[in-house]
Amino acid sequence: MKNSLFGKLTPKEPKFLPLLNNLSDTLLETATLLEESISHHTAQEREEYYKRIKELERQGDTFNHSINDELATTFITPFDREDINRLSASIDDVIDRINGTAKRIYLYNPQPIGAAGVELTKIIKESAQYIVDAVSKLENIHGNAKEIRTSCRTLHNLENQADDIYEKFVQNLFVNETDFAELIKSKEIMQGLEKATDGADFVGKVLKSMVVKYI
Amino acid sequence: MKNSLFGKLTPKEPKFLPLLNNLSDTLLETATLLEESISHHTAQEREEYYKRIKELERQGDTFNHSINDELATTFITPFDREDINRLSASIDDVIDRINGTAKRIYLYNPQPIGAAGVELTKIIKESAQYIVDAVSKLENIHGNAKEIRTSCRTLHNLENQADDIYEKFVQNLFVNETDFAELIKSKEIMQGLEKATDGADFVGKVLKSMVVKYI
Amino acid sequence: MKNSLFGKLTPKEPKFLPLLNNLSDTLLETATLLEESISHHTAQEREEYYKRIKELERQGDTFNHSINDELATTFITPFDREDINRLSASIDDVIDRINGTAKRIYLYNPQPIGAAGVELTKIIKESAQYIVDAVSKLENIHGNAKEIRTSCRTLHNLENQADDIYEKFVQNLFVNETDFAELIKSKEIMQGLEKATDGADFVGKVLKSMVVKYI
Repeated sequence: MKNSLFGKLTPKEPKFLPLLNNLSDTLLETATLLEESISHHTAQEREEYYKRIKELERQGDTFNHSINDELATTFITPFDREDINRLSASIDDVIDRINGTAKRIYLYNPQPIGAAGVELTKIIKESAQYIVDAVSKLENIHGNAKEIRTSCRTLHNLENQADDIYEKFVQNLFVNETDFAELIKSKEIMQGLEKATDGADFVGKVLKSMVVKYI
Repeated sequence: MKNSLFGKLTPKEPKFLPLLNNLSDTLLETATLLEESISHHTAQEREEYYKRIKELERQGDTFNHSINDELATTFITPFDREDINRLSASIDDVIDRINGTAKRIYLYNPQPIGAAGVELTKIIKESAQYIVDAVSKLENIHGNAKEIRTSCRTLHNLENQADDIYEKFVQNLFVNETDFAELIKSKEIMQGLEKATDGADFVGKVLKSMVVKYI
Repeated sequence: MKNSLFGKLTPKEPKFLPLLNNLSDTLLETATLLEESISHHTAQEREEYYKRIKELERQGDTFNHSINDELATTFITPFDREDINRLSASIDDVIDRINGTAKRIYLYNPQPIGAAGVELTKIIKESAQYIVDAVSKLENIHGNAKEIRTSCRTLHNLENQADDIYEKFVQNLFVNETDFAELIKSKEIMQGLEKATDGADFVGKVLKSMVVKYI
């Protein structure tokens, strides 16, 4: 049996790398759905998209828990437990932030999301793609160190771009939005999107610290 | 003397279980006072309730610190130090969230809190009762495992109910509230109440993880 | 060579005390600039002050990282690693909060900040001075224990003063502010200032716990 004492004491194929790939794939699916949702403006469509994103968020939780369980029963891992933990938690956190923003869009049911919001969801999706790519390269961290570092740098640049978009948006919002309910709605939704890119940048920081440590 | 070196090295009656009971009793008192306060609408009454809740919050802090002190000087505890710590901190956090919301009610002095707010305070009080009950059963965690688990499940259900109430409330708020100051006030106060139930659900998660670990 | 194995194994002059002094000096510079900025009301001035504060914030990050690096390579430190870490992180956090508030002032470009805001920035600056003073006394924690404790108590009193100012401000704001955009702007900016004093109070708590532990 795979889970016998003997199995536990001998190095085994770590299962958490495939699980981490599953988790980052889930992030990409969530980000893709968010980007698609942003150009659908009826209350009903928004509710449906939120429900689908919510399901992906639960799926992400499941992968995150499985990674933790796997770590608890694996004696020899290619990385420190805390690093895998932090990486898994940070990816899960990006999914949570996307889910939280989709929930706001559903609950607040704002005016159609404008160009700045569309741009932010594109950046989130692009960030998710870089995360999927970098995580898939962890299996051979030595050979892929350079590419992983490049992805981390890109994640940071994308976060900076999102920051600029968000800042310009907020400056305009306070000058031009004359409906107070819409002002509050837009501000919180855009903030949610911006914080998702912060989360993706943080995933990059965790990945970068692993590259520094293990090569 | 009880605190002599000898006393320290031999198993002693752990004092933190009674302290945890005191802390959860304080939570229930706080939640009860919050529920009572919610139907008093004058600025003066709100200030008085806030002051009384603030005192309970300080009392909770004292119990929480005593638990930490007790852990630092007790060699043999029936549970891991971190678990007692997390449990104590999580209960204290619910008290803090209630206190923060009572403070908002006092400072913002909004229109009378509506039906949804009353319902949320009822859920918070009910959650506090389940926490008191589950904590009192820790002394015999083996014999009470099933009941503690049931309480945790109920805490989770109560949090879900609170979520639904909060979501419907926010949807209506943005459609119907025409006074911007009242919209902001209501939104933040209801959010505070909803986050108190999140905190209570988290206490349930800590309790559940202890049951899984020690039986 | 200083970083030879031999150097690592023998006690060396800890470098993190000077670095901690640098970090708290940076905090004081940031707080001084914030206080100065608060009476400049054009969009352009606000942007310039924010940029200068942002630079100081990056400088603080650099000191904070250097302290962490120094801790990782120093075998014998006069304090526990976690304590230096917590202290450094807590000072850095106050800088971050000031930076975040300066950013809001720049982005929101509100009406001139009123008297309550000016008072809060004075309290933040005063708090920074007490932190600089207390940190400079860590070198001789035994001889300076009493003075450090007094600074910590003052930090707590300053935070209480800030709390009172903020509370009165918010109460008035909801009664008197008739422009919804200005209400939101003021509330968030004043909240940011108040949270900076919370952060300074937390630095005091970390310092106090070190005094209790090491003397």
